[in-house]
Amino acid sequence: MLEFELLATDGLARRARLRLNHGVVDTPQFMPVGTYGSVKGVLPAALAQMGAQIILGNTFHLWLRPGVDVIRTFEGLHRFEGWSQSILTDSGGFQVWSLGAMRTISEEGVRFASPVNGDRLFLTPEVSMQIQTVLNSDVVMQFDECTPYESGGRITDEGAARASMELSLRWARRCSAEFERLENPNALFGIVQGGMFEALREQSLAQLAEMDLPGYAIGGVSVGEPKQDMRRIVAHTPQRLPPHKPRYLMGVGTPEDLVDGVAHGVDLFDCVMPTRNARNGHLFTRFGDLRLRNARYKDDPRPIDETCGCHACGQFSRAYLHHLDRCGEMLAPMLTSLHNLHFYLQLMREMREAIEQRRFAAWRTQFEADRARGP
Amino acid sequence: MLEFELLATDGLARRARLRLNHGVVDTPQFMPVGTYGSVKGVLPAALAQMGAQIILGNTFHLWLRPGVDVIRTFEGLHRFEGWSQSILTDSGGFQVWSLGAMRTISEEGVRFASPVNGDRLFLTPEVSMQIQTVLNSDVVMQFDECTPYESGGRITDEGAARASMELSLRWARRCSAEFERLENPNALFGIVQGGMFEALREQSLAQLAEMDLPGYAIGGVSVGEPKQDMRRIVAHTPQRLPPHKPRYLMGVGTPEDLVDGVAHGVDLFDCVMPTRNARNGHLFTRFGDLRLRNARYKDDPRPIDETCGCHACGQFSRAYLHHLDRCGEMLAPMLTSLHNLHFYLQLMREMREAIEQRRFAAWRTQFEADRARGP
Repeated sequence: MLEFELLATDGLARRARLRLNHGVVDTPQFMPVGTYGSVKGVLPAALAQMGAQIILGNTFHLWLRPGVDVIRTFEGLHRFEGWSQSILTDSGGFQVWSLGAMRTISEEGVRFASPVNGDRLFLTPEVSMQIQTVLNSDVVMQFDECTPYESGGRITDEGAARASMELSLRWARRCSAEFERLENPNALFGIVQGGMFEALREQSLAQLAEMDLPGYAIGGVSVGEPKQDMRRIVAHTPQRLPPHKPRYLMGVGTPEDLVDGVAHGVDLFDCVMPTRNARNGHLFTRFGDLRLRNARYKDDPRPIDETCGCHACGQFSRAYLHHLDRCGEMLAPMLTSLHNLHFYLQLMREMREAIEQRRFAAWRTQFEADRARGP
Repeated sequence: MLEFELLATDGLARRARLRLNHGVVDTPQFMPVGTYGSVKGVLPAALAQMGAQIILGNTFHLWLRPGVDVIRTFEGLHRFEGWSQSILTDSGGFQVWSLGAMRTISEEGVRFASPVNGDRLFLTPEVSMQIQTVLNSDVVMQFDECTPYESGGRITDEGAARASMELSLRWARRCSAEFERLENPNALFGIVQGGMFEALREQSLAQLAEMDLPGYAIGGVSVGEPKQDMRRIVAHTPQRLPPHKPRYLMGVGTPEDLVDGVAHGVDLFDCVMPTRNARNGHLFTRFGDLRLRNARYKDDPRPIDETCGCHACGQFSRAYLHHLDRCGEMLAPMLTSLHNLHFYLQLMREMREAIEQRRFAAWRTQFEADRARGP
């Protein structure tokens, strides 16, 4: 089930509402990443409290641990991980691609050895659909080949990008057929590939659009390409996708990347950056990024971000967080992850409001000026 | 400031209320340990929610990191660590004692090299009082020498235990004088030493009682001695302390140790066991201890403890926690620490009720039967 209601537009930016089997998602929206069925360091109740409406799970990781048999006994991921709202799962394609030399890609699928126990495994479009059906995620991603930006130091040429994109299209059709056969009650998204080549992107999206899937993603960005190439694809592809369906930019990115994506008509984002950076003391604030490990924060009584409404900013100082980080205390990543995720979700909230009020461009100018100020 | 009101007794067990500068503490009570100004993996708000009324901080650790200058700018530990209720700080004596070969003890104090940066430091009764005054902890512990149970494989004999106990008594007098001079508005506790020798314990407590301090601790237990020796001292010393003052058994222990301590008239306990064991997958339940890493929990849909009211037991299964632990997810120690601390605080709540209703012996029989059942 997926319903998509476009509520307002402002230039290419869109404010919409997505209805999935586990509830409503207001877009533009950011999806915190819960690789192993847990957004690292953050309780589901805290995610709900900060306004998260949908989180991501990684099919590849959950397949290996705890395995589908365990999740089947919980009738899916929601009850297993204690999250009652929506979940999107990726297909496992990106992770098997990341295994590099440890995997072999064929028309049929990807053979690889489990990095957990060495088991020889075979992931195909059909297997990915079967796993995601057990996970019962509200949004199921097609199994695709994530076209690399470069391999062995050589940038992927148009011929290789075309072959990869076409393989992903054939896999999209197999996914759709298997998804139907399984009578999966959720929503299958197709993934536009085509590397850094606009013409390939257009061929990919035209053929996916013909399949009339309930939503589409832009894949194969944020895979090591220069920022200007990513921005070029983001400026090109989203606006060409079917307007009455949700658009998801996979694995992106910095706050500025999210704003740029929304400006070009993207509805959904996911990224490990808020939580991973938090664990490394890299904090996002309205007035620019803050490196918590800098000695200047040793006795700074201010919160991370004086304009932030999160629990970390309401209760604790930079000095305390600096101290916790220095001592390796678990409370440091707990609080900084809370803050960074809250920052991302608040950023999306502000963008939704700005679009509703048709002042997105002015909001963006202020956002960029604020971020340049310094924390 | 310290007021101690004895509300009920049942045998030697006592139900009392302690008033300190940052609020009320109902005893018997357990104090979660926040070594570096953070109870590992648990938000202060979560501690308050589970009923914690007083937490512990370690003077030695906080002296080294973040240092007194930082904590002074926050006017003490409460605002620095975001905990508004009571705090007890130890004196640093136990930690310098633990440094072993890296320290030299003299009449004046303890010389040692900082394990953080190698700085040569000198901790004396006066310095301990000065640091704890900056920390502004509600209960200040005297600087003492924690008499070891054994050194280099040889059990401490009565002569050595006597010399150590007498040094601690002289240090208690210096602490008291310095505490007065500093006009510290909080409460100083003396520490009974004397090793495993009842006669020495009696001499120590008699001389401390003469000092008329607002509270007393039993130190030098839980330092590697056999359980039967610890139980012998716990059966001996607490009941001989002044009845109208709080009694604190330092660094103890298992749930059974706490029940035994209460049965012998102890009011306050602290121990790292609930949080440390949680991080190692060792969970306390009403029906005995549960080893989360055991494969039998792989698909167990039950909560850790069906009778427990904590957030972890309300929302998550053994299977999910087993999975998180196996994947090294931070949420595992967060949830298990929450549960173990909740278990300890609930245990104290039950004991307070049982004493009020004068059914402590019956409650204890049931507790022991339940714990023997198996989780």
